[in-house]
Amino acid sequence: MRFEITARDKDTKARIGKIYTDHGIIETPCFMPVGSQGSVKTLSPKDLNECDVQIVLGNTYYLYLKPGAEIIKKGGGIHKFIGWKKPILTDSGGYQVFSLADLNKIEENGVTFQSHFDGSYHFFTPEKIIDIQRKLGPDIIMPLDYPVGYPSEYSTAKVANDISMKWAKISLDYFKKSSSFYDYRQTLFGICQGGIYKDLRKLGLEKMIQMEFDGYAIGGLSVGEPKQILYDLTEFSSEILPVEKPRYLMGIGKPEDIVKSIKRGIDMFDCVIPTRNGRNGTLYTSKGKVVIKNAIYKDDFKPLDSDCDCYTCKNFSRAYLRHLFNAGEILALRLFSLHNINFFISLTKRIRSAVINNTFKDWTREFYNSYFESGEEKNG
Amino acid sequence: MRFEITARDKDTKARIGKIYTDHGIIETPCFMPVGSQGSVKTLSPKDLNECDVQIVLGNTYYLYLKPGAEIIKKGGGIHKFIGWKKPILTDSGGYQVFSLADLNKIEENGVTFQSHFDGSYHFFTPEKIIDIQRKLGPDIIMPLDYPVGYPSEYSTAKVANDISMKWAKISLDYFKKSSSFYDYRQTLFGICQGGIYKDLRKLGLEKMIQMEFDGYAIGGLSVGEPKQILYDLTEFSSEILPVEKPRYLMGIGKPEDIVKSIKRGIDMFDCVIPTRNGRNGTLYTSKGKVVIKNAIYKDDFKPLDSDCDCYTCKNFSRAYLRHLFNAGEILALRLFSLHNINFFISLTKRIRSAVINNTFKDWTREFYNSYFESGEEKNG
Repeated sequence: MRFEITARDKDTKARIGKIYTDHGIIETPCFMPVGSQGSVKTLSPKDLNECDVQIVLGNTYYLYLKPGAEIIKKGGGIHKFIGWKKPILTDSGGYQVFSLADLNKIEENGVTFQSHFDGSYHFFTPEKIIDIQRKLGPDIIMPLDYPVGYPSEYSTAKVANDISMKWAKISLDYFKKSSSFYDYRQTLFGICQGGIYKDLRKLGLEKMIQMEFDGYAIGGLSVGEPKQILYDLTEFSSEILPVEKPRYLMGIGKPEDIVKSIKRGIDMFDCVIPTRNGRNGTLYTSKGKVVIKNAIYKDDFKPLDSDCDCYTCKNFSRAYLRHLFNAGEILALRLFSLHNINFFISLTKRIRSAVINNTFKDWTREFYNSYFESGEEKNG
Repeated sequence: MRFEITARDKDTKARIGKIYTDHGIIETPCFMPVGSQGSVKTLSPKDLNECDVQIVLGNTYYLYLKPGAEIIKKGGGIHKFIGWKKPILTDSGGYQVFSLADLNKIEENGVTFQSHFDGSYHFFTPEKIIDIQRKLGPDIIMPLDYPVGYPSEYSTAKVANDISMKWAKISLDYFKKSSSFYDYRQTLFGICQGGIYKDLRKLGLEKMIQMEFDGYAIGGLSVGEPKQILYDLTEFSSEILPVEKPRYLMGIGKPEDIVKSIKRGIDMFDCVIPTRNGRNGTLYTSKGKVVIKNAIYKDDFKPLDSDCDCYTCKNFSRAYLRHLFNAGEILALRLFSLHNINFFISLTKRIRSAVINNTFKDWTREFYNSYFESGEEKNG
């Protein structure tokens, strides 16, 4: 993997880049749709291609439990298995083990947990997480980490940070000794933790930088902390991280968070918001959020977003979309997920153009003016 | 609407035809996917076009309750509302009123029923059903009818048949006095009832034929009766119906039922089987049914049906499809519905070719040999 910065914004820390992988180039800043179980919920690879999605996420925790790494390896690796030819990143599952699993217990070299599917017991070590991802075959591998929720005591955040750093080192050493099962290369990113404590964050960042990963993820944010803390820690982390490596803000976020984080130097994002909210009938448009079940849309025959060129907006009215949703039709969930993914992908595309054309500051103002009717949150 | 017969099979009653509507030509025999609520479950109009679907069904009962005929009229009619430019047929909702509604009570001029959605009371008359369908705007309208289940006493079937005939006459007279709200024509079919009793069927058919509808539906079958009764009554009805009008066997059926009914002179079919069974993980292939959750498919990396050219079969393995289904992914339901609809559409296409090429008899034998491993049900 190679990362190249091709343009920088004149007013902010925003930067435009390219990540070269053996499955193609990812233009950054980029948004990565989440397909934890090997499917971006409701959408086909063809849909994702039509939205110009560049890279999708898988999740080690999920794919290890179902269908299992051996099945995916036997099927020729994750790209072939899920029918997606462009780059794939798999998250380590650390977040899931510590938030989703029915039980989790830190032991000396790893963590024991119970599957949230069937209660079965499993043991993850940093090495095992690398082994699984070698078998899965994503382009970008994430190491086992230990994120904490919000709020967390300093002592809790410190322990988790220490363990995350220790596991990162074990992961990197083990990764270097292992090799790809496939005819393409894989790369390993580091994940920085530290909760909301700047000294812990700084320590984590510096340790990770010393280890020399190919890219750096800022983990453990967007777990319930106030927005200002998210923005501050993003800025704080971004300034410490090396300029020449991609920066990935994990689990972020809302459209406005993405804009604000790109301004602070972030290159990569992932979030379940477009698909999860799509399935709940909350739709993102250039004029702000639309809650489609609202009665005002019952005879509104305009497109969902007249500025949008997705299949949903080009072919159906708000009245029909509302009807499908209220009638419990699965097609609604699909059309909504498609639109939302297209909105997030288009958002990063428009930001890339604005930065390249030196109009990012103006673009941001216009975006906020249109997106937030109230004019709130325009700054930051 | 105009119907033209372009070829006949030399060995059976099978015939090839064209139904001309203002939304295009329907080649018969045809299979019509069911989209009761204005959506063929999980599928987009683009998907249906890719499967070469020629006509879809809507349902008056469902669309009257949600979103309501006025909304659809305000939205420019059902084609525009649901984004489907080819022909549409709407069923009258008679079947739903008598099978799905929480309560139904025949009164002198119609039927009172309670919505299965919210328990609200409604009153349908033959005239109201025409009015609703004039507003909805399908190409083919079906009149209010009164089907009975299986088994039903002779006296019950007789009463329902008498009411169906009476309502058919009222519907036709009222239809002739009304006119289309749209810039295209609508046509009305008659529905023949009579339960499993041949004398009642004969009476119903003769009365309907006297009234001179543009097409004739055989209703009230596939409601639990033995297969031989279905085939016998289909043949019996088909022989009485006029040669020059399209014959529609309502709610049928399984692939083998479609083959057997085409042989008996049927031109049109609709059934929820491909989508409903798709959502249950039962898939139709040239080699018979596949129950995808079965463990034998867990590391089966072959396509679902190597004879099929649908998106599902061209892009994914059985192992991945099984994984998606077992992991509860909505994409599974979509890919399965797409494949099953493609299978049913392709089945009627292949039959049309076989009849045209005078190979229907051989084709049928080969189809059964491949579809039924056991060799059972080869004849009939």
